[in-house]
Amino acid sequence: MPTTVNAVGAHEAGKPLTPVTIQRRDVGPHDVQLDILYCGICHSDMNFVDGSFGPLPVSPLVPGHEIVGRVIETGSAVTRHQVGDLVGIGCMANSCRECENCRAGQEQYCLGGHTLVFGSPDPAEPGAHTQGGYSEAIVAPEDFVVRVPETLDAAAAPLLCAGITVYAPLKRFAAGPGTRVAVVGLGGLGHLGVKMAKAMGAEVTVLSRSDSKRDAAAALGADHYAATGDGTAFTELTNTFDLILNTVSAPISLADYLGLLRLRGTMISVGVTTQPMPLDLFPLLQNGRSYAGSLFGGIAETQEMLDFAAEHKVTADIELIGAHDINTAYARINASDVRYRFVIDGSTFKGLTA
Amino acid sequence: MPTTVNAVGAHEAGKPLTPVTIQRRDVGPHDVQLDILYCGICHSDMNFVDGSFGPLPVSPLVPGHEIVGRVIETGSAVTRHQVGDLVGIGCMANSCRECENCRAGQEQYCLGGHTLVFGSPDPAEPGAHTQGGYSEAIVAPEDFVVRVPETLDAAAAPLLCAGITVYAPLKRFAAGPGTRVAVVGLGGLGHLGVKMAKAMGAEVTVLSRSDSKRDAAAALGADHYAATGDGTAFTELTNTFDLILNTVSAPISLADYLGLLRLRGTMISVGVTTQPMPLDLFPLLQNGRSYAGSLFGGIAETQEMLDFAAEHKVTADIELIGAHDINTAYARINASDVRYRFVIDGSTFKGLTA
Repeated sequence: MPTTVNAVGAHEAGKPLTPVTIQRRDVGPHDVQLDILYCGICHSDMNFVDGSFGPLPVSPLVPGHEIVGRVIETGSAVTRHQVGDLVGIGCMANSCRECENCRAGQEQYCLGGHTLVFGSPDPAEPGAHTQGGYSEAIVAPEDFVVRVPETLDAAAAPLLCAGITVYAPLKRFAAGPGTRVAVVGLGGLGHLGVKMAKAMGAEVTVLSRSDSKRDAAAALGADHYAATGDGTAFTELTNTFDLILNTVSAPISLADYLGLLRLRGTMISVGVTTQPMPLDLFPLLQNGRSYAGSLFGGIAETQEMLDFAAEHKVTADIELIGAHDINTAYARINASDVRYRFVIDGSTFKGLTA
Repeated sequence: MPTTVNAVGAHEAGKPLTPVTIQRRDVGPHDVQLDILYCGICHSDMNFVDGSFGPLPVSPLVPGHEIVGRVIETGSAVTRHQVGDLVGIGCMANSCRECENCRAGQEQYCLGGHTLVFGSPDPAEPGAHTQGGYSEAIVAPEDFVVRVPETLDAAAAPLLCAGITVYAPLKRFAAGPGTRVAVVGLGGLGHLGVKMAKAMGAEVTVLSRSDSKRDAAAALGADHYAATGDGTAFTELTNTFDLILNTVSAPISLADYLGLLRLRGTMISVGVTTQPMPLDLFPLLQNGRSYAGSLFGGIAETQEMLDFAAEHKVTADIELIGAHDINTAYARINASDVRYRFVIDGSTFKGLTA
């Protein structure tokens, strides 16, 4: 039987979110149902809601893709999870599972296009769209649900998107003892980038426009800090870093940042900007540098990341809010007034009236 | 005692080359002197001579950085080479040898700036500039002279620049059995890219604007060919290649080419263009793709490349010319009328009158 659940969603792009009720599909043989304990707020939720990703794919649209919950029901064929397990769901709710990228465990690059946890046509329910974590409960295929170590709590929710987004490229490009990592930007992604890179053993420098985040960077464990606003850092730190993790969702001067990479260093962009950036080849040719992109991560590496986070006690710095505070939180994120991530207390959806 | 040798050089940017005589410094303790047997003509020689790299660094300027010769004199402390050895000199005649890049065997990225084989201030002779291979003989530090296997001949000269330029990134990014490599452009660099990638065991596709080079690509051993002019190849070959070796010295549509890379694939540019190209992030984010630059190679890997080329019988397709044909060759290169590389017969410098 489908279930009606309380949620918060958008009826129209650019308008405030409101309480809504949505249907969760019946739990199929390979599905699990979660009681949602926590859901992080990610900037891309806001991009969907404010219309910058285009018209709403469905109305109402319930955002939320950093979900931590407890299993309350399992399908007849489920083997990965049991009722009572603490689990998580991130950006994806499904993928084709057959293309070479899915077979390589990189479902986020599914050549058929992965199913987003909200706003995608749902292959499990023809005609319906997936709906996200700003709600009481969710039903999802067990293969896209990961185990959350019991030592983790609300502060783990942002790991499901922001955490894996920074962990995957740091791991892939071998951040670790003896490597120098720069993190550009100190927001939701950047603050986890600092923590993850430090936990991997790297020497970490935060690059930020002004001096205003110097203390915050030190508090997160960064070894060094450089303000880039006046440009002198680009000269002083030339040929310094093995990796640059660019978390800024806006165009940057590629030549300036690429020049900071030492021999065979790589800059990785995980922040999304739709504006093309002029690329001059010489900074890439010099030192044999690379510029790479990375999109969150696969399911297996998300599990690996959560286990790593539990072992190294890496979670997000968060502010826990109630379901009725979401619009305020959006406004504060737009004003850069959060350190570093809002997480919604899932229990507060229960009392909402649509 | 310095030696006076015949050469061909430029007195003024943009003017034809003429016979000149230059001084070669005395053979120092760590130097060797070569009788030049062959010198390849590379497009960057022409860039120096036609002024597109700026004013001539010295007048006359003797180009040439794909040098094969025989050792005719060794300094008192030389251990690497003996009189009679067949040897080669490529783009570099020296480097600082102390920076982290030199210590890593990547002298081409010397942080102090390497000494070009021609047109650089010569650290061995204060006040003088290095002069290149369009000449009878040359003196160079033994550490920047590589062994040329005796099975190689005139067709090996272009390996010293074009060959290492394509070999180094193909090796670094693991071209080999099971990998699919695309080579963009089929000139001096591209034709060696095809041969090297095939010799490494990769499946090779040539991408060229029109169909005109289809037969030539097959003759070089390419497995596939695609004409990119009408754009359909960018759709048909999406998500196909592990590596794209871009040898074109002009701006390309980065989004089109990056879209051809499969999971975690890398595009490498070895052709130089000074014009910035607009880079859209999405094609990099999808599939976790990378875009890398590469500048010829270090001394040790140049030696490795020559040994590989001898073992796999990889040399350039060349047209052997005399010293008096260089201006004609330049004109023919500008008209794309060469398959694929001119090599000057070093013995023809001996009869020149300055």
